[in-house]
Amino acid sequence: MQQALDILAVSTRGAGLYEITDDVAGWVRGTGFQLGLLTVFCRHTSAGLLITENASPAVWRDLQRWMSHVAPEGDHYEHSDEGPDDMPAHLKSVLTGNSVTVPVSDGRIMLGTWQGLFLAEFRRAPHRRSVVMHLAGQ
Amino acid sequence: MQQALDILAVSTRGAGLYEITDDVAGWVRGTGFQLGLLTVFCRHTSAGLLITENASPAVWRDLQRWMSHVAPEGDHYEHSDEGPDDMPAHLKSVLTGNSVTVPVSDGRIMLGTWQGLFLAEFRRAPHRRSVVMHLAGQ
Amino acid sequence: MQQALDILAVSTRGAGLYEITDDVAGWVRGTGFQLGLLTVFCRHTSAGLLITENASPAVWRDLQRWMSHVAPEGDHYEHSDEGPDDMPAHLKSVLTGNSVTVPVSDGRIMLGTWQGLFLAEFRRAPHRRSVVMHLAGQ
Repeated sequence: MQQALDILAVSTRGAGLYEITDDVAGWVRGTGFQLGLLTVFCRHTSAGLLITENASPAVWRDLQRWMSHVAPEGDHYEHSDEGPDDMPAHLKSVLTGNSVTVPVSDGRIMLGTWQGLFLAEFRRAPHRRSVVMHLAGQ
Repeated sequence: MQQALDILAVSTRGAGLYEITDDVAGWVRGTGFQLGLLTVFCRHTSAGLLITENASPAVWRDLQRWMSHVAPEGDHYEHSDEGPDDMPAHLKSVLTGNSVTVPVSDGRIMLGTWQGLFLAEFRRAPHRRSVVMHLAGQ
Repeated sequence: MQQALDILAVSTRGAGLYEITDDVAGWVRGTGFQLGLLTVFCRHTSAGLLITENASPAVWRDLQRWMSHVAPEGDHYEHSDEGPDDMPAHLKSVLTGNSVTVPVSDGRIMLGTWQGLFLAEFRRAPHRRSVVMHLAGQ
């Protein structure tokens, strides 16, 4: 087994889901590995990574509304000096987690037909997010 | 280090938790690997994988009721054409995540005494779920 | 590629976040591996692992209050014989998950500047928690 590692920079333009499936799949293809384990890791505490339906923008909107309902803005947070969307962003980041792990076979990420990989930006202001891609395999 | 990869098909009969600990542990044993990293990955956006208490059906029922409380059915979703249990299923899938990663030592998955590995089916209709098992080790 | 595996015992003194970044980073350094994949796994169903902001105790308190709001104590659980904080602890453990996976480069865990790794204890009573550290790399 061998390893490959790279950084994917994702520029966000406000809160939302940014699909990175093609970027990551292209990188995996470029390594030439046929069998392996892919790990994608987001180096931030106010953004996250998740897998969800890849074909329906309505699902993405419902998902974001749901996360904002579960972790709402409000004046009940002790940590509020970085703006009203900061603490909810930290909570959503714990909700989604910071990494996604997917096996690779025949040189392809083994996502299901309807699965897409997304960076979830939880802050309103534009950010440049650093996402680590690691592949162990052969 | 070497790798093994296989698919576990799980037939579900409605929403619920389906324990797959023994299936996965048996597969790990069959590889003969003594030390490694096990990744189990669910290839669907309306089912998930999770680890919880392995001995108490009451815990499983409470857990499912809780998920249905946090991500309830209702007429407030934009994505509703696949039935009332579809969008909540996508939300629960994000809540639990799609993969579980556990180290392997002495040929055994290092789950704690009370930990079991479950496929969580979030749709009411029966499904055949595809779960990838990947083991890197030796 | 090679592997290293060890157990980190974490003594908790009640519900709260216990930062283990330095313990884990020190262990990774000790292996001498320069490039790899780190997996940290918590062998319990009433504690979890998470990554969040490493500099603000206010964030940690808000995060814990939020989890207790999302998974509150109460008399509505079927599983209650191990105390009022037991079932909420199982729910929070599913919310956070049991493992954290982070790539390693130049001998260092690739956490972002503001990311810290925490064991989250969800029970009130003191516990001794067993956390597995696995590193695959070279």
